[in-house]
Amino acid sequence: MEIQSENSKEILYPHVSVDCVLLGIDGEQLCVLLTERKDAGTGKTEYKLPGSLIYETEDLDEAACRILNETTGLKRVLLKQFRSFGSPQRTANKEDVLWLENASKLKIGRIVTVAYLALCKVRKIKISEKYGAAQWTPIASLPRLPFDHQEIIAEAVKEIRIWLDREPAIVFDFLPPLFTAFQLRRTYEIIYNKSMDVRNFHKKMNSLGYVVPTEETEQGMPHRSARYYRFDKKEYNKIRAKLNTI
Amino acid sequence: MEIQSENSKEILYPHVSVDCVLLGIDGEQLCVLLTERKDAGTGKTEYKLPGSLIYETEDLDEAACRILNETTGLKRVLLKQFRSFGSPQRTANKEDVLWLENASKLKIGRIVTVAYLALCKVRKIKISEKYGAAQWTPIASLPRLPFDHQEIIAEAVKEIRIWLDREPAIVFDFLPPLFTAFQLRRTYEIIYNKSMDVRNFHKKMNSLGYVVPTEETEQGMPHRSARYYRFDKKEYNKIRAKLNTI
Repeated sequence: MEIQSENSKEILYPHVSVDCVLLGIDGEQLCVLLTERKDAGTGKTEYKLPGSLIYETEDLDEAACRILNETTGLKRVLLKQFRSFGSPQRTANKEDVLWLENASKLKIGRIVTVAYLALCKVRKIKISEKYGAAQWTPIASLPRLPFDHQEIIAEAVKEIRIWLDREPAIVFDFLPPLFTAFQLRRTYEIIYNKSMDVRNFHKKMNSLGYVVPTEETEQGMPHRSARYYRFDKKEYNKIRAKLNTI
Repeated sequence: MEIQSENSKEILYPHVSVDCVLLGIDGEQLCVLLTERKDAGTGKTEYKLPGSLIYETEDLDEAACRILNETTGLKRVLLKQFRSFGSPQRTANKEDVLWLENASKLKIGRIVTVAYLALCKVRKIKISEKYGAAQWTPIASLPRLPFDHQEIIAEAVKEIRIWLDREPAIVFDFLPPLFTAFQLRRTYEIIYNKSMDVRNFHKKMNSLGYVVPTEETEQGMPHRSARYYRFDKKEYNKIRAKLNTI
Protein backbone atom coordinates (compact mmCIF):
# COMPACT_ATOMS: atom_id res chain seq x y z
CA MET A 1 0.00 0.00 0.00
CA GLU A 2 0.97 3.57 -0.61
CA ILE A 3 -0.19 6.03 1.96
CA GLN A 4 -1.76 9.07 0.38
CA SER A 5 -2.16 11.22 3.44
CA GLU A 6 -0.09 11.98 6.50
CA ASN A 7 -3.26 12.56 8.43
CA SER A 8 -3.82 9.25 10.09
CA LYS A 9 -7.21 10.32 11.38
CA GLU A 10 -8.56 9.97 7.88
CA ILE A 11 -7.59 6.31 7.57
CA LEU A 12 -10.42 3.87 8.12
CA TYR A 13 -10.12 1.60 11.13
CA PRO A 14 -13.26 -0.55 11.03
CA HIS A 15 -14.50 -3.82 12.40
CA VAL A 16 -14.87 -6.65 9.90
CA SER A 17 -17.75 -9.10 9.85
CA VAL A 18 -19.01 -11.99 7.78
CA ASP A 19 -22.62 -12.31 6.62
CA CYS A 20 -24.01 -15.51 5.09
CA VAL A 21 -26.79 -15.51 2.48
CA LEU A 22 -28.34 -18.97 2.18
CA LEU A 23 -30.87 -19.09 -0.66
CA GLY A 24 -33.34 -21.86 -1.35
CA ILE A 25 -36.69 -22.48 -3.01
CA ASP A 26 -39.44 -23.44 -0.59
CA GLY A 27 -42.46 -24.63 -2.53
CA GLU A 28 -43.34 -21.60 -4.57
CA GLN A 29 -40.94 -18.97 -3.31
CA LEU A 30 -37.30 -17.95 -3.29
CA CYS A 31 -36.29 -17.80 0.38
CA VAL A 32 -33.36 -16.66 2.48
CA LEU A 33 -32.34 -17.99 5.88
CA LEU A 34 -32.70 -15.36 8.62
CA THR A 35 -31.80 -15.55 12.29
CA GLU A 36 -33.36 -13.75 15.22
CA ARG A 37 -31.81 -10.85 17.04
CA LYS A 38 -33.22 -9.68 20.33
CA ASP A 39 -32.72 -6.09 21.32
CA ALA A 40 -31.63 -6.00 24.97
CA GLY A 41 -32.85 -2.42 25.30
CA THR A 42 -36.28 -2.48 23.67
CA GLY A 43 -36.94 -6.23 23.97
CA LYS A 44 -38.04 -6.22 20.30
CA THR A 45 -37.34 -9.29 18.19
CA GLU A 46 -35.93 -8.60 14.74
CA TYR A 47 -34.39 -10.65 11.97
CA LYS A 48 -31.03 -10.52 10.22
CA LEU A 49 -28.63 -12.52 8.08
CA PRO A 50 -26.55 -15.09 9.98
CA GLY A 51 -23.36 -13.14 10.61
CA SER A 52 -20.89 -11.90 13.19
CA LEU A 53 -17.66 -10.04 13.77
CA ILE A 54 -14.57 -12.07 12.98
CA TYR A 55 -11.88 -13.05 15.45
CA GLU A 56 -8.29 -11.92 15.60
CA THR A 57 -6.97 -15.37 14.69
CA GLU A 58 -9.36 -16.30 11.87
CA ASP A 59 -9.09 -16.25 8.10
CA LEU A 60 -12.25 -15.10 6.29
CA ASP A 61 -13.47 -18.49 4.99
CA GLU A 62 -12.85 -20.01 8.40
CA ALA A 63 -14.84 -17.23 10.08
CA ALA A 64 -17.74 -17.76 7.65
CA CYS A 65 -17.97 -21.48 8.51
CA ARG A 66 -17.72 -20.86 12.25
CA ILE A 67 -20.30 -18.09 12.21
CA LEU A 68 -22.84 -20.04 10.15
CA ASN A 69 -22.39 -22.98 12.50
CA GLU A 70 -22.70 -20.89 15.66
CA THR A 71 -25.78 -19.03 14.50
CA THR A 72 -27.69 -21.92 12.86
CA GLY A 73 -25.97 -25.18 13.81
CA LEU A 74 -25.35 -25.87 10.11
CA LYS A 75 -22.15 -27.59 8.97
CA ARG A 76 -20.79 -28.62 5.60
CA VAL A 77 -22.60 -25.89 3.67
CA LEU A 78 -20.53 -24.85 0.65
CA LEU A 79 -20.18 -21.12 1.26
CA LYS A 80 -18.73 -19.01 -1.53
CA GLN A 81 -17.40 -15.52 -0.87
CA PHE A 82 -19.15 -13.24 -3.37
CA ARG A 83 -18.67 -9.59 -2.39
CA SER A 84 -17.56 -7.25 0.39
CA PHE A 85 -19.72 -4.34 1.44
CA GLY A 86 -18.15 -1.33 3.10
CA SER A 87 -20.20 1.79 2.54
CA PRO A 88 -20.10 4.37 5.36
CA GLN A 89 -23.91 4.30 5.06
CA ARG A 90 -24.01 0.73 6.40
CA THR A 91 -24.04 2.05 9.96
CA ALA A 92 -26.25 5.09 9.29
CA ASN A 93 -29.08 3.68 11.41
CA LYS A 94 -28.24 4.42 15.06
CA GLU A 95 -30.57 1.70 16.31
CA ASP A 96 -28.52 -0.96 14.50
CA VAL A 97 -25.27 0.40 15.88
CA LEU A 98 -26.66 0.58 19.40
CA TRP A 99 -27.86 -3.01 19.21
CA LEU A 100 -24.46 -4.17 18.05
CA GLU A 101 -22.66 -2.13 20.71
CA ASN A 102 -24.88 -3.69 23.39
CA ALA A 103 -24.33 -7.17 22.04
CA SER A 104 -20.60 -6.84 21.51
CA LYS A 105 -19.61 -4.49 24.35
CA LEU A 106 -17.54 -2.69 21.72
CA LYS A 107 -17.62 0.84 20.41
CA ILE A 108 -18.74 0.42 16.80
CA GLY A 109 -17.75 2.84 14.03
CA ARG A 110 -17.74 1.48 10.51
CA ILE A 111 -18.05 -2.21 9.66
CA VAL A 112 -16.84 -3.81 6.46
CA THR A 113 -18.65 -7.09 5.88
CA VAL A 114 -17.54 -9.96 3.67
CA ALA A 115 -20.62 -11.65 2.25
CA TYR A 116 -20.88 -15.38 1.51
CA LEU A 117 -23.49 -17.17 -0.58
CA ALA A 118 -24.80 -20.74 -0.70
CA LEU A 119 -27.62 -22.38 -2.67
CA CYS A 120 -29.60 -24.90 -0.63
CA LYS A 121 -32.34 -27.46 -0.92
CA VAL A 122 -34.56 -26.01 1.78
CA ARG A 123 -36.13 -29.30 2.77
CA LYS A 124 -32.79 -31.00 3.14
CA ILE A 125 -31.49 -28.33 5.54
CA LYS A 126 -32.51 -29.03 9.09
CA ILE A 127 -32.06 -26.22 11.58
CA SER A 128 -31.73 -27.92 14.96
CA GLU A 129 -34.20 -26.85 17.65
CA LYS A 130 -31.47 -25.08 19.53
CA TYR A 131 -31.50 -22.57 16.67
CA GLY A 132 -35.28 -22.56 16.33
CA ALA A 133 -35.19 -18.87 15.67
CA ALA A 134 -33.54 -19.34 12.28
CA GLN A 135 -36.13 -19.46 9.54
CA TRP A 136 -36.52 -19.52 5.78
CA THR A 137 -38.17 -16.27 4.78
CA PRO A 138 -39.57 -15.44 1.32
CA ILE A 139 -37.44 -12.76 -0.35
CA ALA A 140 -40.63 -11.13 -1.58
CA SER A 141 -41.75 -10.42 1.97
CA LEU A 142 -38.66 -9.63 4.03
CA PRO A 143 -39.14 -7.88 7.36
CA ARG A 144 -37.09 -4.78 8.20
CA LEU A 145 -33.45 -5.89 8.32
CA PRO A 146 -30.50 -4.16 10.00
CA PHE A 147 -27.54 -2.49 8.30
CA ASP A 148 -27.56 -3.11 4.51
CA HIS A 149 -28.82 -6.70 4.75
CA GLN A 150 -31.61 -5.93 2.25
CA GLU A 151 -29.00 -4.82 -0.27
CA ILE A 152 -26.74 -7.82 0.42
CA ILE A 153 -29.68 -10.18 -0.23
CA ALA A 154 -30.61 -8.29 -3.42
CA GLU A 155 -27.01 -8.58 -4.66
CA ALA A 156 -26.94 -12.28 -3.78
CA VAL A 157 -30.06 -12.85 -5.89
CA LYS A 158 -28.42 -11.03 -8.82
CA GLU A 159 -25.35 -13.17 -8.28
CA ILE A 160 -27.24 -16.50 -8.58
CA ARG A 161 -28.93 -15.23 -11.76
CA ILE A 162 -25.46 -14.57 -13.20
CA TRP A 163 -24.30 -18.04 -12.10
CA LEU A 164 -27.35 -19.56 -13.73
CA ASP A 165 -26.87 -17.61 -16.98
CA ARG A 166 -23.31 -18.86 -17.16
CA GLU A 167 -23.87 -22.34 -15.80
CA PRO A 168 -27.44 -23.32 -16.64
CA ALA A 169 -26.97 -26.77 -15.05
CA ILE A 170 -27.28 -25.16 -11.61
CA VAL A 171 -31.05 -25.04 -11.98
CA PHE A 172 -31.19 -28.84 -11.79
CA ASP A 173 -29.71 -28.70 -8.30
CA PHE A 174 -33.05 -27.29 -7.17
CA LEU A 175 -35.02 -30.12 -8.82
CA PRO A 176 -35.50 -33.87 -8.22
CA PRO A 177 -33.85 -36.22 -10.80
CA LEU A 178 -37.19 -36.56 -12.62
CA PHE A 179 -39.20 -33.37 -13.01
CA THR A 180 -42.13 -32.09 -15.03
CA ALA A 181 -41.94 -29.20 -17.50
CA PHE A 182 -44.13 -27.29 -15.06
CA GLN A 183 -41.62 -27.78 -12.22
CA LEU A 184 -38.72 -26.60 -14.39
CA ARG A 185 -40.62 -23.55 -15.58
CA ARG A 186 -41.69 -22.63 -12.04
CA THR A 187 -38.08 -22.91 -10.81
CA TYR A 188 -36.96 -20.41 -13.46
CA GLU A 189 -39.91 -18.15 -12.77
CA ILE A 190 -39.14 -18.15 -9.06
CA ILE A 191 -35.43 -17.43 -9.48
CA TYR A 192 -35.94 -14.71 -12.13
CA ASN A 193 -39.15 -13.47 -10.53
CA LYS A 194 -41.06 -13.28 -13.82
CA SER A 195 -43.72 -15.37 -15.48
CA MET A 196 -43.05 -17.19 -18.73
CA ASP A 197 -45.28 -18.01 -21.66
CA VAL A 198 -46.03 -21.74 -21.36
CA ARG A 199 -45.97 -22.48 -25.09
CA ASN A 200 -42.67 -20.61 -25.71
CA PHE A 201 -41.15 -22.28 -22.70
CA HIS A 202 -41.98 -25.76 -24.04
CA LYS A 203 -40.57 -24.90 -27.45
CA LYS A 204 -37.36 -23.56 -25.92
CA MET A 205 -37.03 -26.47 -23.50
CA ASN A 206 -37.39 -29.01 -26.31
CA SER A 207 -34.74 -27.21 -28.39
CA LEU A 208 -32.11 -27.28 -25.65
CA GLY A 209 -31.02 -30.87 -26.23
CA TYR A 210 -30.08 -31.50 -22.62
CA VAL A 211 -33.59 -31.64 -21.12
CA VAL A 212 -34.75 -35.07 -22.19
CA PRO A 213 -38.26 -36.60 -21.97
CA THR A 214 -38.54 -39.97 -20.22
CA GLU A 215 -41.23 -42.65 -20.52
CA GLU A 216 -42.44 -41.95 -17.00
CA THR A 217 -45.37 -39.77 -16.01
CA GLU A 218 -46.67 -38.26 -12.78
CA GLN A 219 -48.83 -40.68 -10.81
CA GLY A 220 -51.98 -40.10 -8.80
CA MET A 221 -52.75 -36.65 -10.15
CA PRO A 222 -56.37 -35.54 -10.56
CA HIS A 223 -55.50 -33.85 -13.89
CA ARG A 224 -53.97 -35.42 -17.00
CA SER A 225 -50.66 -36.82 -15.75
CA ALA A 226 -47.59 -34.91 -16.96
CA ARG A 227 -44.49 -36.43 -18.50
CA TYR A 228 -41.26 -36.54 -16.51
CA TYR A 229 -38.05 -35.09 -17.93
CA ARG A 230 -34.44 -35.56 -16.89
CA PHE A 231 -31.25 -33.51 -17.21
CA ASP A 232 -28.80 -35.10 -19.68
CA LYS A 233 -25.45 -34.01 -18.29
CA LYS A 234 -23.43 -35.64 -21.08
CA GLU A 235 -25.27 -33.76 -23.79
CA TYR A 236 -25.05 -30.56 -21.76
CA ASN A 237 -21.29 -30.92 -21.44
CA LYS A 238 -21.01 -31.44 -25.21
CA ILE A 239 -22.74 -28.11 -25.93
CA ARG A 240 -20.75 -26.51 -23.08
CA ALA A 241 -17.49 -27.69 -24.64
CA LYS A 242 -18.35 -25.97 -27.90
CA LEU A 243 -18.66 -22.66 -26.12
CA ASN A 244 -15.74 -23.30 -23.85
CA THR A 245 -12.37 -21.94 -24.66
CA ILE A 246 -10.44 -23.85 -27.19
CA MET B 1 -24.21 -9.79 13.66
CA GLU B 2 -24.36 -12.06 16.69
CA ILE B 3 -21.53 -11.75 19.10
CA GLN B 4 -20.15 -15.12 20.06
CA SER B 5 -17.84 -14.04 22.82
CA GLU B 6 -17.95 -11.54 25.62
CA ASN B 7 -14.22 -11.18 25.36
CA SER B 8 -13.80 -8.16 23.17
CA LYS B 9 -10.05 -8.71 22.95
CA GLU B 10 -10.71 -11.59 20.60
CA ILE B 11 -12.61 -9.51 18.07
CA LEU B 12 -10.60 -8.43 15.04
CA TYR B 13 -10.04 -4.71 14.61
CA PRO B 14 -8.02 -4.41 11.41
CA HIS B 15 -7.19 -1.82 8.80
CA VAL B 16 -8.82 -2.28 5.42
CA SER B 17 -7.07 -1.72 2.10
CA VAL B 18 -7.78 -2.03 -1.57
CA ASP B 19 -5.39 -3.73 -4.02
CA CYS B 20 -5.81 -3.50 -7.80
CA VAL B 21 -4.74 -6.30 -10.16
CA LEU B 22 -4.50 -4.98 -13.74
CA LEU B 23 -3.78 -7.81 -16.17
CA GLY B 24 -2.76 -7.44 -19.80
CA ILE B 25 -0.92 -9.31 -22.54
CA ASP B 26 2.27 -7.61 -23.63
CA GLY B 27 3.54 -9.28 -26.77
CA GLU B 28 4.11 -12.82 -25.64
CA GLN B 29 3.41 -12.66 -21.91
CA LEU B 30 0.66 -12.24 -19.39
CA CYS B 31 1.61 -9.18 -17.32
CA VAL B 32 0.47 -7.40 -14.19
CA LEU B 33 0.89 -3.72 -13.38
CA LEU B 34 3.18 -3.16 -10.39
CA THR B 35 4.14 0.08 -8.65
CA GLU B 36 7.33 0.93 -6.81
CA ARG B 37 7.65 1.12 -3.08
CA LYS B 38 10.72 2.65 -1.50
CA ASP B 39 11.72 1.52 1.96
CA ALA B 40 12.56 4.60 4.01
CA GLY B 41 14.68 2.51 6.36
CA THR B 42 16.78 0.36 4.04
CA GLY B 43 16.48 2.54 0.90
CA LYS B 44 15.65 -0.61 -1.07
CA THR B 45 13.25 -0.34 -3.99
CA GLU B 46 10.63 -3.03 -4.19
CA TYR B 47 7.45 -3.62 -6.18
CA LYS B 48 3.84 -4.17 -5.18
CA LEU B 49 0.28 -4.08 -6.46
CA PRO B 50 -1.23 -0.59 -6.70
CA GLY B 51 -3.08 -0.34 -3.41
CA SER B 52 -3.59 1.64 -0.23
CA LEU B 53 -5.53 1.90 3.00
CA ILE B 54 -9.03 3.26 2.56
CA TYR B 55 -10.40 6.43 4.09
CA GLU B 56 -13.02 6.86 6.74
CA THR B 57 -15.49 8.45 4.30
CA GLU B 58 -15.07 6.14 1.29
CA ASP B 59 -17.09 3.25 -0.06
CA LEU B 60 -14.99 0.33 -1.39
CA ASP B 61 -15.48 0.91 -5.15
CA GLU B 62 -14.78 4.60 -4.65
CA ALA B 63 -11.57 3.83 -2.77
CA ALA B 64 -10.43 1.46 -5.54
CA CYS B 65 -10.82 4.16 -8.22
CA ARG B 66 -9.07 6.80 -6.10
CA ILE B 67 -6.19 4.52 -5.18
CA LEU B 68 -5.56 3.34 -8.74
CA ASN B 69 -5.61 6.93 -9.88
CA GLU B 70 -3.29 8.16 -7.13
CA THR B 71 -0.76 5.38 -7.61
CA THR B 72 -0.71 5.22 -11.43
CA GLY B 73 -2.56 8.26 -12.79
CA LEU B 74 -5.04 5.92 -14.51
CA LYS B 75 -8.71 6.84 -14.80
CA ARG B 76 -11.73 5.15 -16.31
CA VAL B 77 -10.42 1.62 -15.80
CA LEU B 78 -13.32 -0.78 -15.23
CA LEU B 79 -12.33 -2.32 -11.91
CA LYS B 80 -14.32 -5.29 -10.67
CA GLN B 81 -14.19 -6.40 -7.04
CA PHE B 82 -13.31 -10.09 -7.09
CA ARG B 83 -12.27 -11.27 -3.62
CA SER B 84 -11.27 -10.10 -0.15
CA PHE B 85 -8.18 -11.49 1.51
CA GLY B 86 -7.90 -11.47 5.29
CA SER B 87 -5.61 -14.23 6.53
CA PRO B 88 -3.68 -13.46 9.72
CA GLN B 89 -0.65 -14.64 7.72
CA ARG B 90 -0.85 -11.60 5.42
CA THR B 91 1.21 -9.58 7.87
CA ALA B 92 3.55 -12.40 8.94
CA ASN B 93 6.55 -10.69 7.35
CA LYS B 94 7.80 -8.06 9.79
CA GLU B 95 9.61 -6.14 7.05
CA ASP B 96 6.33 -5.51 5.21
CA VAL B 97 4.62 -4.34 8.38
CA LEU B 98 7.52 -2.06 9.27
CA TRP B 99 7.48 -0.51 5.82
CA LEU B 100 3.75 0.16 6.06
CA GLU B 101 4.06 1.56 9.58
CA ASN B 102 6.79 3.94 8.39
CA ALA B 103 4.77 5.00 5.39
CA SER B 104 1.46 5.40 7.20
CA LYS B 105 2.62 6.53 10.66
CA LEU B 106 0.12 4.02 11.99
CA LYS B 107 0.48 0.98 14.19
CA ILE B 108 -0.41 -1.90 11.86
CA GLY B 109 -1.89 -5.16 13.10
CA ARG B 110 -3.96 -7.16 10.64
CA ILE B 111 -5.09 -5.82 7.29
CA VAL B 112 -8.06 -7.12 5.32
CA THR B 113 -7.68 -6.19 1.66
CA VAL B 114 -10.44 -6.01 -0.94
CA ALA B 115 -8.97 -6.99 -4.31
CA TYR B 116 -10.11 -5.54 -7.64
CA LEU B 117 -9.40 -6.87 -11.13
CA ALA B 118 -9.29 -5.28 -14.59
CA LEU B 119 -8.33 -6.65 -18.02
CA CYS B 120 -6.34 -4.17 -20.09
CA LYS B 121 -4.89 -3.67 -23.53
CA VAL B 122 -1.34 -2.99 -22.36
CA ARG B 123 -0.43 -0.77 -25.28
CA LYS B 124 -3.50 1.38 -24.85
CA ILE B 125 -2.72 2.09 -21.19
CA LYS B 126 -0.34 4.99 -20.78
CA ILE B 127 1.19 5.47 -17.37
CA SER B 128 2.08 9.18 -17.14
CA GLU B 129 5.72 9.99 -16.40
CA LYS B 130 4.81 11.19 -12.96
CA TYR B 131 4.11 7.52 -12.22
CA GLY B 132 7.11 6.25 -14.16
CA ALA B 133 7.72 3.67 -11.51
CA ALA B 134 4.59 1.74 -12.45
CA GLN B 135 5.41 -1.03 -14.87
CA TRP B 136 3.93 -4.06 -16.60
CA THR B 137 5.70 -7.11 -15.24
CA PRO B 138 5.43 -10.65 -16.66
CA ILE B 139 3.57 -12.90 -14.22
CA ALA B 140 6.08 -15.63 -14.95
CA SER B 141 8.91 -13.55 -13.50
CA LEU B 142 7.52 -11.57 -10.59
CA PRO B 143 9.96 -10.07 -8.11
CA ARG B 144 9.47 -10.64 -4.36
CA LEU B 145 6.19 -8.93 -3.47
CA PRO B 146 5.00 -7.77 -0.05
CA PHE B 147 2.15 -9.26 2.00
CA ASP B 148 0.18 -11.86 -0.01
CA HIS B 149 0.40 -10.00 -3.33
CA GLN B 150 1.74 -13.13 -5.05
CA GLU B 151 -1.36 -15.04 -3.94
CA ILE B 152 -3.70 -12.21 -4.94
CA ILE B 153 -2.20 -12.18 -8.45
CA ALA B 154 -2.44 -15.98 -8.70
CA GLU B 155 -6.11 -15.83 -7.70
CA ALA B 156 -6.75 -13.04 -10.21
CA VAL B 157 -5.29 -15.20 -13.00
CA LYS B 158 -7.57 -18.09 -11.96
CA GLU B 159 -10.46 -15.63 -11.95
CA ILE B 160 -9.90 -14.50 -15.57
CA ARG B 161 -9.70 -18.14 -16.66
CA ILE B 162 -13.10 -18.71 -15.05
CA TRP B 163 -14.49 -15.57 -16.77
CA LEU B 164 -13.12 -16.79 -20.07
CA ASP B 165 -14.59 -20.30 -19.64
CA ARG B 166 -17.96 -18.79 -18.98
CA GLU B 167 -17.78 -15.90 -21.41
CA PRO B 168 -15.45 -16.95 -24.25
CA ALA B 169 -15.99 -13.62 -26.04
CA ILE B 170 -13.63 -11.95 -23.54
CA VAL B 171 -10.63 -13.32 -25.43
CA PHE B 172 -11.42 -11.02 -28.37
CA ASP B 173 -10.93 -7.99 -26.13
CA PHE B 174 -7.22 -8.82 -26.17
CA LEU B 175 -7.13 -9.01 -29.98
CA PRO B 176 -7.43 -6.56 -32.90
CA PRO B 177 -10.66 -6.77 -34.98
CA LEU B 178 -8.86 -8.89 -37.58
CA PHE B 179 -6.53 -11.56 -36.22
CA THR B 180 -4.72 -14.65 -37.43
CA ALA B 181 -5.29 -18.15 -36.10
CA PHE B 182 -1.78 -17.92 -34.67
CA GLN B 183 -2.65 -14.78 -32.69
CA LEU B 184 -5.81 -16.35 -31.28
CA ARG B 185 -3.98 -19.53 -30.31
CA ARG B 186 -1.15 -17.58 -28.65
CA THR B 187 -3.64 -15.51 -26.63
CA TYR B 188 -5.20 -18.69 -25.24
CA GLU B 189 -1.80 -20.23 -24.61
CA ILE B 190 -0.67 -17.13 -22.72
CA ILE B 191 -3.77 -16.87 -20.56
CA TYR B 192 -3.91 -20.60 -19.76
CA ASN B 193 -0.14 -20.95 -19.68
CA LYS B 194 -0.07 -24.12 -21.76
CA SER B 195 0.81 -24.93 -25.35
CA MET B 196 -1.80 -26.25 -27.76
CA ASP B 197 -1.58 -28.65 -30.65
CA VAL B 198 -1.79 -26.52 -33.82
CA ARG B 199 -3.84 -28.98 -35.85
CA ASN B 200 -6.39 -29.62 -33.06
CA PHE B 201 -6.65 -25.93 -32.42
CA HIS B 202 -7.53 -25.21 -36.06
CA LYS B 203 -10.13 -27.97 -36.10
CA LYS B 204 -11.72 -26.67 -32.90
CA MET B 205 -11.59 -23.05 -34.04
CA ASN B 206 -13.32 -23.88 -37.33
CA SER B 207 -16.05 -25.81 -35.51
CA LEU B 208 -16.94 -22.93 -33.19
CA GLY B 209 -19.07 -21.06 -35.69
CA TYR B 210 -18.29 -17.63 -34.27
CA VAL B 211 -14.67 -17.33 -35.46
CA VAL B 212 -15.13 -16.51 -39.13
CA PRO B 213 -12.49 -16.42 -41.91
CA THR B 214 -12.30 -13.21 -43.95
CA GLU B 215 -10.93 -12.61 -47.47
CA GLU B 216 -8.01 -10.62 -46.08
CA THR B 217 -4.53 -11.90 -45.38
CA GLU B 218 -1.49 -10.62 -43.52
CA GLN B 219 0.64 -8.27 -45.62
CA GLY B 220 4.42 -7.90 -45.87
CA MET B 221 5.31 -11.13 -44.09
CA PRO B 222 8.40 -13.08 -45.14
CA HIS B 223 6.53 -16.39 -44.80
CA ARG B 224 3.31 -17.49 -46.52
CA SER B 225 0.80 -14.83 -45.52
CA ALA B 226 -1.84 -16.01 -43.06
CA ARG B 227 -5.57 -15.50 -43.36
CA TYR B 228 -7.34 -13.01 -41.08
CA TYR B 229 -10.31 -14.07 -38.99
CA ARG B 230 -12.95 -12.03 -37.19
CA PHE B 231 -15.24 -12.59 -34.22
CA ASP B 232 -18.91 -12.95 -35.26
CA LYS B 233 -20.73 -11.61 -32.26
CA LYS B 234 -24.20 -12.29 -33.66
CA GLU B 235 -23.47 -15.98 -34.20
CA TYR B 236 -21.82 -16.15 -30.76
CA ASN B 237 -24.92 -14.71 -29.12
CA LYS B 238 -27.10 -17.26 -30.92
CA ILE B 239 -25.12 -20.17 -29.46
CA ARG B 240 -24.99 -18.37 -26.12
CA ALA B 241 -28.77 -18.03 -26.10
CA LYS B 242 -29.17 -21.78 -26.53
CA LEU B 243 -27.15 -22.38 -23.40
CA ASN B 244 -28.71 -19.51 -21.52
CA THR B 245 -31.54 -20.09 -19.19
CA ILE B 246 -34.90 -20.44 -20.78
